[in-house]
Amino acid sequence: MHRNHVYVFDVAGAPAAALDDLDVVRTALSDLVADAGLHPVGSEAVHRFAPQGLSLAILLAESHVAVHTWPEHGTAYVTLTTCRRPADGFVERTRAALADALSGEVVARTVADA
Amino acid sequence: MHRNHVYVFDVAGAPAAALDDLDVVRTALSDLVADAGLHPVGSEAVHRFAPQGLSLAILLAESHVAVHTWPEHGTAYVTLTTCRRPADGFVERTRAALADALSGEVVARTVADA
Repeated sequence: MHRNHVYVFDVAGAPAAALDDLDVVRTALSDLVADAGLHPVGSEAVHRFAPQGLSLAILLAESHVAVHTWPEHGTAYVTLTTCRRPADGFVERTRAALADALSGEVVARTVADA
Repeated sequence: MHRNHVYVFDVAGAPAAALDDLDVVRTALSDLVADAGLHPVGSEAVHRFAPQGLSLAILLAESHVAVHTWPEHGTAYVTLTTCRRPADGFVERTRAALADALSGEVVARTVADA
Protein backbone atom coordinates (compact mmCIF):
# COMPACT_ATOMS: atom_id res chain seq x y z
CA MET A 1 0.00 0.00 0.00
CA HIS A 2 1.36 3.40 -0.95
CA ARG A 3 2.26 5.50 2.09
CA ASN A 4 1.66 9.17 2.35
CA HIS A 5 1.98 11.97 4.83
CA VAL A 6 -0.44 14.72 5.75
CA TYR A 7 0.56 17.81 7.68
CA VAL A 8 -1.97 20.40 8.84
CA PHE A 9 -1.11 23.91 9.98
CA ASP A 10 -3.92 25.80 11.70
CA VAL A 11 -3.64 29.58 11.53
CA ALA A 12 -5.46 31.97 13.89
CA GLY A 13 -5.28 35.63 14.82
CA ALA A 14 -4.07 36.70 11.39
CA PRO A 15 -5.10 40.03 9.83
CA ALA A 16 -7.90 39.77 7.29
CA ALA A 17 -5.87 41.70 4.73
CA ALA A 18 -3.15 39.05 4.66
CA LEU A 19 -5.60 36.14 4.49
CA ASP A 20 -7.45 37.72 1.59
CA ASP A 21 -4.30 38.58 -0.39
CA LEU A 22 -3.65 35.86 -2.96
CA ASP A 23 -0.05 36.98 -3.50
CA VAL A 24 0.74 36.80 0.22
CA VAL A 25 -0.91 33.42 0.58
CA ARG A 26 0.65 31.96 -2.57
CA THR A 27 4.10 33.15 -1.52
CA ALA A 28 3.66 31.52 1.89
CA LEU A 29 2.80 28.21 0.22
CA SER A 30 5.62 28.48 -2.31
CA ASP A 31 8.11 29.07 0.49
CA LEU A 32 6.77 26.02 2.34
CA VAL A 33 7.16 23.89 -0.79
CA ALA A 34 10.70 25.11 -1.40
CA ASP A 35 11.70 24.53 2.21
CA ALA A 36 10.33 21.01 2.07
CA GLY A 37 12.36 20.30 -1.06
CA LEU A 38 9.22 19.60 -3.08
CA HIS A 39 8.49 20.52 -6.69
CA PRO A 40 5.45 22.34 -8.17
CA VAL A 41 4.36 20.92 -11.50
CA GLY A 42 2.86 24.17 -12.76
CA SER A 43 -0.83 23.54 -12.12
CA GLU A 44 -2.90 25.23 -9.43
CA ALA A 45 -6.55 25.83 -8.60
CA VAL A 46 -7.72 29.12 -7.10
CA HIS A 47 -11.08 30.27 -5.84
CA ARG A 48 -12.00 33.63 -4.33
CA PHE A 49 -15.02 33.54 -2.06
CA ALA A 50 -17.43 36.48 -1.81
CA PRO A 51 -17.11 38.75 0.02
CA GLN A 52 -13.75 37.40 1.16
CA GLY A 53 -11.67 34.30 1.70
CA LEU A 54 -9.78 32.17 -0.75
CA SER A 55 -8.72 28.63 -1.53
CA LEU A 56 -5.54 27.71 -3.35
CA ALA A 57 -4.30 24.21 -4.22
CA ILE A 58 -0.90 23.71 -5.86
CA LEU A 59 -0.02 20.37 -7.42
CA LEU A 60 3.44 18.99 -6.73
CA ALA A 61 5.51 16.22 -8.20
CA GLU A 62 5.06 14.78 -4.69
CA SER A 63 1.25 15.33 -4.35
CA HIS A 64 -0.17 18.71 -3.28
CA VAL A 65 -0.34 21.62 -0.88
CA ALA A 66 -3.45 23.71 -0.24
CA VAL A 67 -4.71 26.58 1.86
CA HIS A 68 -8.17 27.79 2.81
CA THR A 69 -8.66 31.16 4.50
CA TRP A 70 -11.42 32.81 6.54
CA PRO A 71 -10.35 36.47 6.76
CA GLU A 72 -13.49 37.34 8.72
CA HIS A 73 -12.33 35.03 11.50
CA GLY A 74 -8.60 35.61 11.12
CA THR A 75 -8.18 31.89 10.47
CA ALA A 76 -6.80 29.63 7.78
CA TYR A 77 -5.43 26.17 7.42
CA VAL A 78 -2.71 24.77 5.27
CA THR A 79 -2.42 21.10 4.36
CA LEU A 80 0.57 19.41 2.80
CA THR A 81 -0.17 15.97 1.39
CA THR A 82 2.91 14.22 0.13
CA CYS A 83 4.29 10.84 -0.76
CA ARG A 84 7.74 12.03 0.29
CA ARG A 85 8.51 12.87 3.89
CA PRO A 86 10.16 16.28 4.25
CA ALA A 87 13.48 16.61 6.04
CA ASP A 88 13.67 16.76 9.81
CA GLY A 89 12.67 20.09 11.23
CA PHE A 90 10.21 20.81 8.45
CA VAL A 91 7.16 21.01 10.68
CA GLU A 92 8.61 23.50 13.14
CA ARG A 93 10.28 25.60 10.45
CA THR A 94 7.05 25.73 8.47
CA ARG A 95 5.00 26.56 11.54
CA ALA A 96 7.27 29.52 12.26
CA ALA A 97 7.45 30.62 8.61
CA LEU A 98 3.66 30.60 8.22
CA ALA A 99 3.24 32.54 11.46
CA ASP A 100 5.63 35.14 10.11
CA ALA A 101 4.18 35.27 6.58
CA LEU A 102 0.58 35.57 7.75
CA SER A 103 1.22 37.52 10.97
CA GLY A 104 -0.77 35.05 13.01
CA GLU A 105 -0.44 32.16 15.42
CA VAL A 106 0.07 28.75 13.89
CA VAL A 107 -0.40 25.32 15.41
CA ALA A 108 1.01 22.36 13.49
CA ARG A 109 -0.66 18.96 13.45
CA THR A 110 1.00 16.00 11.81
CA VAL A 111 -2.08 14.01 11.09
CA ALA A 112 -0.52 11.18 9.10
CA ASP A 113 3.15 10.42 9.09
CA ALA A 114 3.26 6.66 8.69
CA MET B 1 -9.05 27.52 16.27
CA HIS B 2 -10.80 26.43 13.10
CA ARG B 3 -11.40 22.69 13.01
CA ASN B 4 -11.05 20.60 9.96
CA HIS B 5 -11.22 16.99 8.93
CA VAL B 6 -8.92 14.96 6.72
CA TYR B 7 -9.88 11.59 5.27
CA VAL B 8 -7.43 9.47 3.30
CA PHE B 9 -8.40 6.56 1.06
CA ASP B 10 -5.52 4.33 -0.08
CA VAL B 11 -6.14 2.43 -3.30
CA ALA B 12 -4.19 -0.67 -4.38
CA GLY B 13 -4.55 -3.40 -6.95
CA ALA B 14 -6.34 -1.18 -9.44
CA PRO B 15 -5.86 -1.55 -13.21
CA ALA B 16 -3.45 0.97 -14.73
CA ALA B 17 -6.00 1.93 -17.36
CA ALA B 18 -8.47 3.17 -14.74
CA LEU B 19 -5.84 5.06 -12.75
CA ASP B 20 -4.60 6.82 -15.88
CA ASP B 21 -8.07 7.76 -17.12
CA LEU B 22 -8.86 11.32 -16.08
CA ASP B 23 -12.59 10.88 -16.75
CA VAL B 24 -12.79 7.78 -14.56
CA VAL B 25 -10.82 9.42 -11.77
CA ARG B 26 -12.73 12.70 -11.93
CA THR B 27 -16.05 10.89 -11.87
CA ALA B 28 -14.97 8.94 -8.80
CA LEU B 29 -14.09 12.17 -7.01
CA SER B 30 -17.27 13.91 -8.12
CA ASP B 31 -19.35 11.04 -6.80
CA LEU B 32 -17.50 11.21 -3.48
CA VAL B 33 -18.17 14.95 -3.25
CA ALA B 34 -21.84 14.53 -4.05
CA ASP B 35 -22.25 11.71 -1.55
CA ALA B 36 -20.61 13.81 1.15
CA GLY B 37 -23.02 16.65 0.45
CA LEU B 38 -20.18 18.98 -0.48
CA HIS B 39 -20.08 21.59 -3.25
CA PRO B 40 -17.47 22.13 -6.00
CA VAL B 41 -16.78 25.79 -6.69
CA GLY B 42 -15.76 25.24 -10.30
CA SER B 43 -11.98 25.34 -10.01
CA GLU B 44 -9.67 22.36 -10.35
CA ALA B 45 -6.00 21.65 -10.98
CA VAL B 46 -4.91 18.74 -13.14
CA HIS B 47 -1.50 17.35 -13.98
CA ARG B 48 -0.65 14.35 -16.17
CA PHE B 49 2.66 12.75 -15.39
CA ALA B 50 4.84 11.16 -18.09
CA PRO B 51 4.60 8.39 -19.03
CA GLN B 52 1.58 7.87 -16.78
CA GLY B 53 -0.11 8.89 -13.57
CA LEU B 54 -2.18 11.93 -12.75
CA SER B 55 -3.03 14.38 -10.02
CA LEU B 56 -6.35 16.15 -9.68
CA ALA B 57 -7.43 18.63 -7.02
CA ILE B 58 -10.98 19.99 -6.92
CA LEU B 59 -11.80 23.02 -4.78
CA LEU B 60 -14.98 22.88 -2.74
CA ALA B 61 -17.02 25.41 -0.83
CA GLU B 62 -15.93 23.24 2.11
CA SER B 63 -12.17 23.00 1.24
CA HIS B 64 -10.89 20.42 -1.28
CA VAL B 65 -10.60 16.86 -2.51
CA ALA B 66 -7.62 15.47 -4.40
CA VAL B 67 -6.30 12.27 -5.92
CA HIS B 68 -2.85 11.13 -6.98
CA THR B 69 -2.41 7.95 -9.01
CA TRP B 70 0.48 5.59 -9.80
CA PRO B 71 -0.84 3.36 -12.60
CA GLU B 72 2.49 1.52 -12.79
CA HIS B 73 1.93 0.31 -9.22
CA GLY B 74 -1.85 -0.01 -9.34
CA THR B 75 -2.05 2.50 -6.49
CA ALA B 76 -3.60 5.85 -5.75
CA TYR B 77 -4.73 7.87 -2.82
CA VAL B 78 -7.60 10.21 -2.34
CA THR B 79 -7.71 12.90 0.33
CA LEU B 80 -10.75 14.86 1.40
CA THR B 81 -9.94 17.93 3.45
CA THR B 82 -13.03 19.67 4.74
CA CYS B 83 -14.24 22.10 7.34
CA ARG B 84 -17.58 20.28 7.41
CA ARG B 85 -17.86 16.75 8.67
CA PRO B 86 -19.72 14.49 6.23
CA ALA B 87 -22.76 12.53 7.39
CA ASP B 88 -22.40 9.24 9.22
CA GLY B 89 -21.47 6.37 6.99
CA PHE B 90 -19.54 8.55 4.57
CA VAL B 91 -16.21 6.81 5.10
CA GLU B 92 -17.48 3.30 4.51
CA ARG B 93 -19.70 4.32 1.59
CA THR B 94 -16.82 6.19 -0.04
CA ARG B 95 -14.41 3.33 0.54
CA ALA B 96 -16.78 0.96 -1.22
CA ALA B 97 -17.59 3.43 -4.01
CA LEU B 98 -13.93 4.10 -4.78
CA ALA B 99 -13.18 0.37 -4.81
CA ASP B 100 -15.98 -0.08 -7.32
CA ALA B 101 -15.09 2.94 -9.48
CA LEU B 102 -11.39 2.09 -9.67
CA SER B 103 -11.72 -1.71 -9.56
CA GLY B 104 -9.23 -1.95 -6.69
CA GLU B 105 -8.94 -2.47 -2.98
CA VAL B 106 -9.39 0.60 -0.82
CA VAL B 107 -8.41 1.18 2.78
CA ALA B 108 -9.83 4.24 4.51
CA ARG B 109 -7.89 6.22 7.07
CA THR B 110 -9.55 9.03 8.98
CA VAL B 111 -6.46 10.96 9.83
CA ALA B 112 -8.05 14.01 11.42
CA ASP B 113 -11.61 14.11 12.61
CA ALA B 114 -11.49 16.38 15.62
